[in-house]
Amino acid sequence: MKHVVLLGGSGYVGKTFQEILSKRNISFRNFSRTELNYYNPAKLKEALKAEAPDCLINAAGYTGKPNVDACEDDKANCLLGNAVLPGIIREVCESLKLPWGHVSSGCIYTGSRSDGSGFLEDDTPNFDFRHNNCSFYSGTKALGEEVLKGAENCYIWRLRIPFDERNNPRNYLTKLLTYEWLLDAENSVSQRFEFIDACLACFEKEIPSGVYNVTNPGAISAREITEIMKTHGMVKKELKFFESEEAFMSEVVRAPRSNCIMSSEKLSSLDIRLTEVHEAVDRACKNWTE
Amino acid sequence: MKHVVLLGGSGYVGKTFQEILSKRNISFRNFSRTELNYYNPAKLKEALKAEAPDCLINAAGYTGKPNVDACEDDKANCLLGNAVLPGIIREVCESLKLPWGHVSSGCIYTGSRSDGSGFLEDDTPNFDFRHNNCSFYSGTKALGEEVLKGAENCYIWRLRIPFDERNNPRNYLTKLLTYEWLLDAENSVSQRFEFIDACLACFEKEIPSGVYNVTNPGAISAREITEIMKTHGMVKKELKFFESEEAFMSEVVRAPRSNCIMSSEKLSSLDIRLTEVHEAVDRACKNWTE
Repeated sequence: MKHVVLLGGSGYVGKTFQEILSKRNISFRNFSRTELNYYNPAKLKEALKAEAPDCLINAAGYTGKPNVDACEDDKANCLLGNAVLPGIIREVCESLKLPWGHVSSGCIYTGSRSDGSGFLEDDTPNFDFRHNNCSFYSGTKALGEEVLKGAENCYIWRLRIPFDERNNPRNYLTKLLTYEWLLDAENSVSQRFEFIDACLACFEKEIPSGVYNVTNPGAISAREITEIMKTHGMVKKELKFFESEEAFMSEVVRAPRSNCIMSSEKLSSLDIRLTEVHEAVDRACKNWTE
Repeated sequence: MKHVVLLGGSGYVGKTFQEILSKRNISFRNFSRTELNYYNPAKLKEALKAEAPDCLINAAGYTGKPNVDACEDDKANCLLGNAVLPGIIREVCESLKLPWGHVSSGCIYTGSRSDGSGFLEDDTPNFDFRHNNCSFYSGTKALGEEVLKGAENCYIWRLRIPFDERNNPRNYLTKLLTYEWLLDAENSVSQRFEFIDACLACFEKEIPSGVYNVTNPGAISAREITEIMKTHGMVKKELKFFESEEAFMSEVVRAPRSNCIMSSEKLSSLDIRLTEVHEAVDRACKNWTE
């Protein structure tokens, strides 16, 4: 990787790309939306021609603040950022034959495969508009993947509930420490820096393009995480768990939430490996910084 | 109506708005997309402030050429035109307290209500992403209506299979005359000029904002239409009908098609009436111009 163009570099994931690329001395240019209206294919193409990167990373998207409930009130922008933008980037990158990667999400699934194992990359999403059971956010992320079906030279990286050792409102561990009530759901999750490393490794190792679940191997429940937190003295109050997902859904949130288990085997079979999930959470808790 | 801003005036429906507004000497300004990037809310707002219309009509949308099958290959632009753009216009019009109308489609339904009657405006769409049975086009039109839910001072006009007396590839009668094989489905349909008159009447009569089915009362089958055409000597070849909808779907089209019956009672209860459908078709055939 000689020169990277980054879109969405000011977001939680985008900032991490900037941090890692800087740390590794990889040349990159982050385009903010005010600097470049990358929703305009002609302008994006012009900028890419001038910049001549050897790959593009799309970390831009609409996640909703403080959480996905906000997407329910801004549906047009949520569609624009998560479903239309990937199509615009695809069109431009394909015309320039530029390899690129898109940060997608595992939230297009709920539960696990019928045998209890994690969803594979080719499994049809089951938490999307087409199942009419999803948040607007998940619906748009699934449409984004539909828009990218068959895209050339394109990695689709599915992130799932980022966490790491730095206290931050977007960090899953911070959320578990600050929410008044917790839901004891089991999930696959993504250590934020390992996620970025894995994304960059796709380009470096030139693995085949396509969809990849980029999660730490295995699954972990919220209660398991809080137990690990306790062993590191992070928990300073009594934690209260909802009795059921129904109680959580009816009392706290507007939009349905996805909880799901994903398989990371496709990526590990290509020798791109993240740390086993319990070990990764334990390490984050051990190195916790306020 | 003193001054109207029109978006999408170069399309089949948009041109008809221009024709009727001109004929009635109603002042209007049609913004083409090259003239004004109305996908940019700031630019749209600025233009509307300068133009100071008393209403806006959105006839812009992505229909696919020559037919909706083309939408399957251009999903991002289809989403942008049909689902995102209505949200952008809503945001701008609400901030300016400007009344406006949006051309939607009856293609978000299939069939009829369980008692055989036409769908009412509040009936949940049943041919959309949320039922996973639709064309990409219908899915995006339904999302467009979802984006407009609760919009202030906004008419949502559902057009359904436009037809009239002028031969045109977009005219349903022309299609029935030129397709090699026909499907004998029953539909509610919209006489193109009556549709426009009804839309304009919403503003003129200041009826309550909301969704309106703008179709000719009743429903008509393709076979009935061809029988009417024959009485006017329009049919010069043998017409061949598919034996079933399944045969049609498997042999001719890529994306599923909607056939549906809609109720026009909400509009007629407010004294905005279109001609009974068989009469309207008969009149179009009588006045047919090549």
